[in-house]
Amino acid sequence: MDRACQYGDGLFETIAVRSGRPCLWSRHVDRLLAGCDRLGIAPPDPELLFAEAGKLIAGRESAVLKIVISSGPSKRGYARDPQARATRWLSCNDWPGEGPPWAQEDELLAQECRTRLGSQPLLAGIKHLNRLEQVLASRELQSGRQEGVLCNQQGRPVEGIASNILLRFNDHYLTPPLRDAGVAGTVRQLLLDQRELLGLPLHVSDTEMASFYRAEGLFMMNSLRGIQPVAKLGEHAYPLARRPNDLDRLHAACFTFSGEPVCAG
Amino acid sequence: MDRACQYGDGLFETIAVRSGRPCLWSRHVDRLLAGCDRLGIAPPDPELLFAEAGKLIAGRESAVLKIVISSGPSKRGYARDPQARATRWLSCNDWPGEGPPWAQEDELLAQECRTRLGSQPLLAGIKHLNRLEQVLASRELQSGRQEGVLCNQQGRPVEGIASNILLRFNDHYLTPPLRDAGVAGTVRQLLLDQRELLGLPLHVSDTEMASFYRAEGLFMMNSLRGIQPVAKLGEHAYPLARRPNDLDRLHAACFTFSGEPVCAG
Repeated sequence: MDRACQYGDGLFETIAVRSGRPCLWSRHVDRLLAGCDRLGIAPPDPELLFAEAGKLIAGRESAVLKIVISSGPSKRGYARDPQARATRWLSCNDWPGEGPPWAQEDELLAQECRTRLGSQPLLAGIKHLNRLEQVLASRELQSGRQEGVLCNQQGRPVEGIASNILLRFNDHYLTPPLRDAGVAGTVRQLLLDQRELLGLPLHVSDTEMASFYRAEGLFMMNSLRGIQPVAKLGEHAYPLARRPNDLDRLHAACFTFSGEPVCAG
Repeated sequence: MDRACQYGDGLFETIAVRSGRPCLWSRHVDRLLAGCDRLGIAPPDPELLFAEAGKLIAGRESAVLKIVISSGPSKRGYARDPQARATRWLSCNDWPGEGPPWAQEDELLAQECRTRLGSQPLLAGIKHLNRLEQVLASRELQSGRQEGVLCNQQGRPVEGIASNILLRFNDHYLTPPLRDAGVAGTVRQLLLDQRELLGLPLHVSDTEMASFYRAEGLFMMNSLRGIQPVAKLGEHAYPLARRPNDLDRLHAACFTFSGEPVCAG
């Protein structure tokens, strides 16, 4: 009866646990709360959530923490039950290790996907549970490919199936905007927030698939991979298939507990 | 762990049970199988499904049968487990009776919704479990309103929150196309399939909200309501707020068991 199962009426977070701590914790919580606000779901208490996560993580060095928030149970019908309370599920799974699809740093192989993302500004940016587009795109992945580049309805690249995109050109980095589609990843947001401090020439800008073949390097970012270089997109091999120095510190920061606002921890 | 709950990776059908039989059964099954094909989910055996539905319905005169098919359980991640088997849930609930939101025939009150449907041809037409747009639109409904008209990203009306739309003008009926958004309802499809036989001048055509205020009548159609006249859209009262004779037979047909293909029943 839970509306997560009936309509995908909820949100989720996937969080890396390294050195026994939930990495980028406050960024994940901030996005979760923003998603609750957007969907009109009562937000969880961040301190309670932190305590619950801590219990699950206890004794683990590395793991993957998943949090799901749904609008709760209801009878049949799209309208929520005003009496219903939001549901909260937390689970902790083994860290996937270094093998595929958690490929070696120099071995992430990607492809273009035919599946295009729908255009829906109301849902863009948040990590909601309506993920059929990503499921369909995953089905396209050829053997040995771990990621795919997804375009929007106009054919402009937006993100990877489970990651955000960072292109490196000679004198700057570029990541596509997420106005109408895409998930605002915690790693992408980390880069955007830290770019002045680090002097990182990173722009949010529309681009085209052709630019992927002119770029010096392509990186795919998410909370489990950090900032991962792509070796090949289709048959195209990147000149720069490793992480340059100016991204190293940011990549490392992806796997630290962010002692920022929300939770005193 | 079921992917319906994780990603809305599945499909559903809501079927009226009247006189102890699942109405428009073969149309519902056809749409379900088409959805399985589109999403790449192993389809259920129609005869088995019919037998299971029959057991749930047994002894009930009127009820609402719900069928959910998901791609089954999997570990975390958008890619399906190739070993996983599709999940099938059937449930049977009481017929909602005649009170709101199952309003009297002359009392369906609707409104325009600000929520717009996303544009995604890959998912248009099928009744999948990614229904956040309908959930958000439901939240807009003002007190006393049972339905809302949803437009696409270009501002063209597509469907109701839980129904398809039929507009009546002096000399013809119109229902919007479902190229990029919307569910291909069983009642809408019944009308389209029977229009030649009945001489019903029904066209599938793009339209604009302005035409809703020029129309003689507005009807909202789904498997539980049949073809229901709308009394008011916002403050606009329709000249024709009852079902005209040429729709009566089709409305009645919505609540019969269709002895068509698929199941010999």
